[in-house]
Amino acid sequence: MTEIKIFCPATIANLNCGFDVMGLCLDGIGDEMVIRKVETKGITITRITGADLPMETERNVAGVAGLALLNAAQSDYGFEIEIHKRIKAGSGIGSSSASAAGAVFGINELLGRPFTKHELVHFAMKGEALASGCEHADNVAPCVLGGFTLVRGYNPLDVIKIQSPEELYAVVLHPHIEVKTSDSRAVLNPEVSLKNAITQWGNLGGLIAGLYTKDYELIGRSLQDVIVEPARKHLIPNFDEVKNAALQNGALGAGISGAGPSIFALCNGEAIANIVSQSMKNAYADTGIPFDIHISKVNDTGTKII
Amino acid sequence: MTEIKIFCPATIANLNCGFDVMGLCLDGIGDEMVIRKVETKGITITRITGADLPMETERNVAGVAGLALLNAAQSDYGFEIEIHKRIKAGSGIGSSSASAAGAVFGINELLGRPFTKHELVHFAMKGEALASGCEHADNVAPCVLGGFTLVRGYNPLDVIKIQSPEELYAVVLHPHIEVKTSDSRAVLNPEVSLKNAITQWGNLGGLIAGLYTKDYELIGRSLQDVIVEPARKHLIPNFDEVKNAALQNGALGAGISGAGPSIFALCNGEAIANIVSQSMKNAYADTGIPFDIHISKVNDTGTKII
Repeated sequence: MTEIKIFCPATIANLNCGFDVMGLCLDGIGDEMVIRKVETKGITITRITGADLPMETERNVAGVAGLALLNAAQSDYGFEIEIHKRIKAGSGIGSSSASAAGAVFGINELLGRPFTKHELVHFAMKGEALASGCEHADNVAPCVLGGFTLVRGYNPLDVIKIQSPEELYAVVLHPHIEVKTSDSRAVLNPEVSLKNAITQWGNLGGLIAGLYTKDYELIGRSLQDVIVEPARKHLIPNFDEVKNAALQNGALGAGISGAGPSIFALCNGEAIANIVSQSMKNAYADTGIPFDIHISKVNDTGTKII
Repeated sequence: MTEIKIFCPATIANLNCGFDVMGLCLDGIGDEMVIRKVETKGITITRITGADLPMETERNVAGVAGLALLNAAQSDYGFEIEIHKRIKAGSGIGSSSASAAGAVFGINELLGRPFTKHELVHFAMKGEALASGCEHADNVAPCVLGGFTLVRGYNPLDVIKIQSPEELYAVVLHPHIEVKTSDSRAVLNPEVSLKNAITQWGNLGGLIAGLYTKDYELIGRSLQDVIVEPARKHLIPNFDEVKNAALQNGALGAGISGAGPSIFALCNGEAIANIVSQSMKNAYADTGIPFDIHISKVNDTGTKII
């Protein structure tokens, strides 16, 4: 096997109560990449469609992530990478993570899997760092591992994968506006009340328990955010209207995907997801802002060969 | 059945990263109570041994909790309660909770179980409120339900019981000193850094995941507290020495039980618990302060008939 085509899924990070630690993997939305094993060492980005991204390996998220893996593997081979972006940059559903995860997943496959999926997360973080300025794993972990992921901590990296309950669907509404990462960071107070922190970690505990016990109601009760969402939601026009529409139409919970601007809702079953999707569209329409909307089962596999 | 004798276990609340939300139930340490169904309505405390506690129903934790249940049940019967305290007041292992849980559990049994165990937690909290001034569930929940409990939130009360991994043992060292609740509250900063809060909820997520997957190592990695323990540990002489001794001798984790002064360690298996217990004794001995030490399997049943 010298060439593979892979699907690099979009991801939702934070998930209300899980700021900076939780993420989930989507199925219906993602990039495609073609990875080719060649005799020349190093990594060459041969083609990019769907986005205006740097072709130079060291300036490209996929290139940097792939090089981190190659250096660790001490491989005699090199790789060519084609990137076909479908996830829009700045959408808040892990566009750069998909590229980073895809590169390390694909190269690892073509090398005969010298690394475990958990180890791949580490290399993918190097690519993520190029895009975001810091090595965080809340999008690359679910993108590589699939399902839900908890990043317990970073010293050393400790990622726990949690299988998604079978019937969990996500709806993601992506308004075509730019929310600068610097803005979404700046609105966060570096201090929080102990009271709110306790509420938040009680809910995170409930979310994790709900996922393990496949208790959809508990998952829904736990999808609350008393810290980050109140500070950030004004950056997203009609956020409250869209969230309320989702909840009133049967969503288990809803919130900001990553640092925004995408708004997500989680639903028990595809039928409810369809109704919720329609209600979110209606609630966003009067902003006049163009948007995409996606419905996707939670993807328990992560990045995969297609 | 008109009379039962019950075991009302001690409990450990907080569990490092789970401040105000987590607790576990012990087996080797607890009070005994005798509950008797009588024709006269209301509750009479007929005997208390092992502690100097009020005999008046409305001033007694067991009495208040029992009355809360009786009022809701609209029972035609009354109950006599004997309390044989073994858990010392102010030890930080749920002395008042044991009395509250025992009363509601026993009365519920004699009434033919009109309430679920989860409902009993609500009544037991009324007794706890008499003792501590606020209706919290982090000790009464594990005392009633057994195993580990997560109190997700209070509006409405949402308690999740998590079965304990089979081989989990706790060691509890109770120094005979008084730590005033007002002091242990006063040292807590009402504001915490968002960074520390994220570390804390990452660890709480890891603890819950470790419990569901019976991953002892993950439980151990997660038993960290970057918020409360650093603020409170100076109230307990030789806390660091005892904790370090426990960790160096194989404990998965160690910390302050409840608001202290008891120090607990969790261990994988009885053999390690015995070694850890000895090391904690040695590390406490040079304080010259008298202490008790208990080794107990985590009790997955909770309060029970004996």
